[in-house]
Amino acid sequence: MKKIELVPIGIIRSCYTEKFAIPRQPGLVKSAVAELELYSPWNRQTLFAGIEKFSHIWVQFYFSEAAVKGWRDSVRPPGLGGRKRVGVFASRSPHRPNHIGISVVKLLSVEKRKSGTVLIVSGGDFMDGTPLLDIKPYLVYSDSVAEATSSYAGNFFEADVVFDDCASSFCRKYQQESGRNLFVLIQEVLSQDPRPASQKGRRKEFGMTLWDVNIRFRVESSENESITSFIVTECTFK
Amino acid sequence: MKKIELVPIGIIRSCYTEKFAIPRQPGLVKSAVAELELYSPWNRQTLFAGIEKFSHIWVQFYFSEAAVKGWRDSVRPPGLGGRKRVGVFASRSPHRPNHIGISVVKLLSVEKRKSGTVLIVSGGDFMDGTPLLDIKPYLVYSDSVAEATSSYAGNFFEADVVFDDCASSFCRKYQQESGRNLFVLIQEVLSQDPRPASQKGRRKEFGMTLWDVNIRFRVESSENESITSFIVTECTFK
Repeated sequence: MKKIELVPIGIIRSCYTEKFAIPRQPGLVKSAVAELELYSPWNRQTLFAGIEKFSHIWVQFYFSEAAVKGWRDSVRPPGLGGRKRVGVFASRSPHRPNHIGISVVKLLSVEKRKSGTVLIVSGGDFMDGTPLLDIKPYLVYSDSVAEATSSYAGNFFEADVVFDDCASSFCRKYQQESGRNLFVLIQEVLSQDPRPASQKGRRKEFGMTLWDVNIRFRVESSENESITSFIVTECTFK
Repeated sequence: MKKIELVPIGIIRSCYTEKFAIPRQPGLVKSAVAELELYSPWNRQTLFAGIEKFSHIWVQFYFSEAAVKGWRDSVRPPGLGGRKRVGVFASRSPHRPNHIGISVVKLLSVEKRKSGTVLIVSGGDFMDGTPLLDIKPYLVYSDSVAEATSSYAGNFFEADVVFDDCASSFCRKYQQESGRNLFVLIQEVLSQDPRPASQKGRRKEFGMTLWDVNIRFRVESSENESITSFIVTECTFK
């Protein structure tokens, strides 16, 4: 069996600097903006001519963190509550034999910088520093199969997100200085519940990092967990 | 830049034994059935537990034929009539820097054979013998972006397909012996016009191979090419 060699054509810069806050799938946290920085010789504009005519693109990337750990026969997808096991090929888990991922994202703009072409996209579920393997246009007529049915994934959790005063004023200041809307990003990340299934109900206090900011939050839930609120208690620079 | 090593987890058996008849995208020729044969150790059923709950799956594969020829900066996609150039990343061309392709196909069944697990799928656009890299469930809620817009691709050609008597009786006999509905397959392949843009209008007679059958057909079109008919004149074993 001959091995196949690929080469990273670029790197993904994202707000997700650790696994914790990354949404289960792309499209869930729309305000998450990522930059796809192309390496030479793939950073020339000619390679992207015409791409701005597409509203969405496929990003193919390498699950470099999971690759170090190898692959698994079966996994417990978060969409099934983290309890039921399914085969790895019946999941989108990063712990697959070939550690390649695909995500559809919205193409915001194609920038020409000194370093070459950079694509700005939103809705991604990429870890910061992820190696980029390929970019393809999203073709509605073949990629969008509205009649397809899935066994799981689709019941979305929507939690209340409340900011303590100091957290909220940190966000305001951060946006003035960096231009990044941290407030909305935290809100979207928390509202789809980033807690691993194994940690639900056990702990009340959590921390996560978005861009260069450490965020602490507390969970308040009704007895049967039917209503959950996240209280953002603290934001500090990393 | 560290290279990334992948390994083929299986091989794709398909009716398309040459490039000519392969549809531009998956889903266009629905009766094209392909078999995804997994290699050991990825051929165990546990790796696929739960996949039968999904109607569609993503197949990630290696464009092994194109890989030999390298990659191009820009291409002329058939969806633009084969005349206009676009950047390779604004296309789904196989001549890409990393020669990896994605196609969504319908999952017909999961078979357990002596050799291990085989997935039977329809609607694929794979060349026979294509190396298989990954299989993932199609998740409607994140993969189907109905509001996405594409600049091209979507105007489908639909030609009349007519069979000469001997071609039609060959297909009938072939189906009795192999169980494969060659008649419908030829009809679907021709109705989306497999001719490369460069050959349109120049030639009238063409040949193609599907499974182990050589097929000859003739083109009849009105003066402005607005109405095109394909006449299947001959079917013979390869």
